[in-house]
Amino acid sequence: MEARYSIAFYFLMLLALSSAFAFPSKKQYKPCKQLVLYFHDIIYNGKNAGNATSAIVAAPDGANLTILAGQFHFGNIAVFDDPITLDNNLHSKPVGRAQGLYIYDTKNTFTSWLGFTFVLNSTDHQGTITFSGADPIMVKARDISIVGGTGDFFMHRGIATIMTDAFEGEVYFRLRVDIKFYECW
Amino acid sequence: MEARYSIAFYFLMLLALSSAFAFPSKKQYKPCKQLVLYFHDIIYNGKNAGNATSAIVAAPDGANLTILAGQFHFGNIAVFDDPITLDNNLHSKPVGRAQGLYIYDTKNTFTSWLGFTFVLNSTDHQGTITFSGADPIMVKARDISIVGGTGDFFMHRGIATIMTDAFEGEVYFRLRVDIKFYECW
Amino acid sequence: MEARYSIAFYFLMLLALSSAFAFPSKKQYKPCKQLVLYFHDIIYNGKNAGNATSAIVAAPDGANLTILAGQFHFGNIAVFDDPITLDNNLHSKPVGRAQGLYIYDTKNTFTSWLGFTFVLNSTDHQGTITFSGADPIMVKARDISIVGGTGDFFMHRGIATIMTDAFEGEVYFRLRVDIKFYECW
Repeated sequence: MEARYSIAFYFLMLLALSSAFAFPSKKQYKPCKQLVLYFHDIIYNGKNAGNATSAIVAAPDGANLTILAGQFHFGNIAVFDDPITLDNNLHSKPVGRAQGLYIYDTKNTFTSWLGFTFVLNSTDHQGTITFSGADPIMVKARDISIVGGTGDFFMHRGIATIMTDAFEGEVYFRLRVDIKFYECW
Repeated sequence: MEARYSIAFYFLMLLALSSAFAFPSKKQYKPCKQLVLYFHDIIYNGKNAGNATSAIVAAPDGANLTILAGQFHFGNIAVFDDPITLDNNLHSKPVGRAQGLYIYDTKNTFTSWLGFTFVLNSTDHQGTITFSGADPIMVKARDISIVGGTGDFFMHRGIATIMTDAFEGEVYFRLRVDIKFYECW
Repeated sequence: MEARYSIAFYFLMLLALSSAFAFPSKKQYKPCKQLVLYFHDIIYNGKNAGNATSAIVAAPDGANLTILAGQFHFGNIAVFDDPITLDNNLHSKPVGRAQGLYIYDTKNTFTSWLGFTFVLNSTDHQGTITFSGADPIMVKARDISIVGGTGDFFMHRGIATIMTDAFEGEVYFRLRVDIKFYECW
């Protein structure tokens, strides 16, 4: 998504913001369970109906549903059903699906708000993990809340640290999600 | 919603998917509080303004707001204020309202993502219960997370098992919600 | 938002509803942490692009994106990035941003459903607080759930009591949020 900016500008933003949003907890807790997963989002742009895993379904006044809105995408809502993989390869065998929505909600930087669920269905993990929180996209590592779980993750709570692992133009991005449960059952 | 499919196909899907999504917890916990409620959704289709309790408010490119979108409704967001009843009768006295949104987020099956709150206001229960999670509609029983509560359900957490109790064409559906709290205060 | 109704009608509604939604917990718990914050929402109306902090991005059939929909705004979704202040002055130095969405989901009164995060970044507080729940706007004080936190609010849970502190026409409103954590880490 940030492709319209030069790499130099991007790193400048990172430097400016990363310290501001790191938000480490003062106390150090050790997760009772931890897993790292990747998910892959290919947004519909009017030409990639076969491959797209997400679609813009709401836009501000004057914008449309095949191009992300101009002002840092402010006002776009996208709905997604993205493959989850164990590594950073889009073509690896999926271990589940990331399903929900993301919202671009800021006019002067790239920020989104996330509400989504990992539905995991592999030999290793069977169950769901639900996430909710603000995602300041330009920050290298940002924390969101894990608000619930089912199956193997019955009643779990925790924090997920999200990193943008790749972005290609305004069509593909990949997030690395470091899931740390601090309340296990 | 599944009315366009024959009953035979529906049961085939159930057989195929139900084992995959059952996700029982390995340990057996006993709920500290449990209640079963039903809620009733009548979606606006351009002709039922008086009765409708929900409306399509977002749709993918090319779709409209009075007919659910073609590709398994992928990309539709509906906003709802549905009556909650103690039994499966739409005309029973409501004990509260289910309020929030559902999202159809998959292109190759019926899957939704839910964010909503039960606002209960009866002699038995006064308070709210907030739910969030993926809802693989074609699965007989599916679990979502209860992420918070107020009033009688102050600080409660748990799991809700949802079953589609009825669906009639693309206008009415009724969900049975088996609410199991595992954290009570 | 309620400006179209006379003050008399407004107080009538308050009297009628406030007892019904107070929902106090039977037991009395004392918060382990508490803070009161305000946030300010200026909705885009086609003329205030410079000042607006939120935008209507979804609307029911027949409505548009620069005027809140007619039937108690039923079906509108707004996306926001609102300044948070320590007092009720819009021009006070912000201590963070409130980011997420609100949904008007009722046809016969003003009710919304909220999913949003406070991103706090001041000398006093660094971290996020995520909220979710039904907001019966016409009620003086209403409780929503705090479903997660990061940074200074790592793994916190609680209840927020929301009060409408001001509303001016259909463009500006200010909410007072009394954040009470009952689970601190």
